[in-house]
Amino acid sequence: MSNTIFWVNGKPEALVSAADRSVHYGDGVFETIRVRDHQPEFLARHLARLRVGCERLGFNAVPWDRVETETLELARQKAEGALKIILSRGSGGRGYRFGSEQHTTRIIGLYDLPQWPDSITTTGIRARVCSLRLSIQPRLAGIKHLNRLEQVLARAEWDDESIREGLMLDLNDRLIEGTMSNVFLVREGRLLTPDLSQCGVSGIMRSVIMDVAERADITVETCALTLDDVRTADEVFICNSLIGIWPVTTIDTIGVYPVGPISRKLGEQLQQVEASRNSHWYAS
Amino acid sequence: MSNTIFWVNGKPEALVSAADRSVHYGDGVFETIRVRDHQPEFLARHLARLRVGCERLGFNAVPWDRVETETLELARQKAEGALKIILSRGSGGRGYRFGSEQHTTRIIGLYDLPQWPDSITTTGIRARVCSLRLSIQPRLAGIKHLNRLEQVLARAEWDDESIREGLMLDLNDRLIEGTMSNVFLVREGRLLTPDLSQCGVSGIMRSVIMDVAERADITVETCALTLDDVRTADEVFICNSLIGIWPVTTIDTIGVYPVGPISRKLGEQLQQVEASRNSHWYAS
Repeated sequence: MSNTIFWVNGKPEALVSAADRSVHYGDGVFETIRVRDHQPEFLARHLARLRVGCERLGFNAVPWDRVETETLELARQKAEGALKIILSRGSGGRGYRFGSEQHTTRIIGLYDLPQWPDSITTTGIRARVCSLRLSIQPRLAGIKHLNRLEQVLARAEWDDESIREGLMLDLNDRLIEGTMSNVFLVREGRLLTPDLSQCGVSGIMRSVIMDVAERADITVETCALTLDDVRTADEVFICNSLIGIWPVTTIDTIGVYPVGPISRKLGEQLQQVEASRNSHWYAS
Repeated sequence: MSNTIFWVNGKPEALVSAADRSVHYGDGVFETIRVRDHQPEFLARHLARLRVGCERLGFNAVPWDRVETETLELARQKAEGALKIILSRGSGGRGYRFGSEQHTTRIIGLYDLPQWPDSITTTGIRARVCSLRLSIQPRLAGIKHLNRLEQVLARAEWDDESIREGLMLDLNDRLIEGTMSNVFLVREGRLLTPDLSQCGVSGIMRSVIMDVAERADITVETCALTLDDVRTADEVFICNSLIGIWPVTTIDTIGVYPVGPISRKLGEQLQQVEASRNSHWYAS
């Protein structure tokens, strides 16, 4: 906590109005971005998703130039870090209604990068299946909005430090995502990832991996998946913007998996993309 | 806005930490309480629901004495008003996980009472049916938590000032509530109100009305209801802690209703309860 730097509406301060609609309703969206060598990785993709989220929620007049400038500027303050952008609809009166005059609140936090052993990418992680089921809500599906109580409750299901992620199903028994990650299965050389049109967050690292796979001639299918698909998968991995790809080698009560060739190949190619700083990948 | 007074953690200030989990996840619960003659109405019931919400979310060490004391103290500052209590899990690092050491954030706001014509209780209101469907989530059903994007989006569906409320169905076509109210139907002298075990907020005014009805020998059924039940209802009314009971006389495309005998009777008895300041009702 002590190493976190917050900027609110462009000013270095760590306070938000008590009338802010993020506090009252979770009326906003956010991004978590990896800072590598003082630069926010895949920034254009993150900003594009923020835009989609703001459009879906009916935000108007978001000062996008400032969001981008402030993000780049704040990122310079740490060589490696985790940067979080929160955009809320701003302050309002009591009541759900909002008018046409909105003043987006910009909250940008720069955190230390969470630490994990380098060996994770070679040895894989242990995961579990959460008992909380995600609700179905197409109107909010895909975007990274601030209503995250389901994730908070799901993450509270376990304390065991050796379990690094919990997989979440929806109320129809479909596999959707991890509490903090997206999930991929490998079956007969093809990559399968859950359809997120009914719930879940469409992650930036998920989209990067889908592009990396396509370039490597690996077929990617977005489809309905269940725990049976997980049970019979050849490989399983999770991803997010901070961790990249983590192979999953154990899912409690479900199965044991190798760190397989597809996971390894995608992990290597992702590292090349990240190292290349190629503007197509790095900024977009 | 200008007339709103905020206290945060007992201090007269209107700022919240940018690290607060209400901002990041909507990780908290709230109450909206009518202040009448400088006193928070039905305070004990509101505090009891807050407790249930905090238990369901796994809050620990909430300083309940302070919440009550501060609410009573702040309420004294306006003869008539709307008081909002927000309790969040407090500040945290980045990530959904919370530890056993939680420091609840208390945000209490005292607002001017919203204005509406006195005639509403005799002429009734016009309502509509929202197109957004509430998601099913038993883990959050009933409590008044801070994840309220569904209500925000539903309330944004109309601008027409003459429409005072939007009724909401869930994804299974069940009638659940209004965007800011609970709903009751009258059929053959009996009171029907939606079951809220799968979604929706179990309102304090709803519980008061159910008790008032019982004392008046009016049968109350909590059950699954659909728009067909609304279409064939003899009377319809909505309620919340600020408005009390509002008869619904028009629901666009659904039906037209009288301000019927049961709505009138319950409205009168509710006013007696509110006027009596009887400690059983007033404080509990």
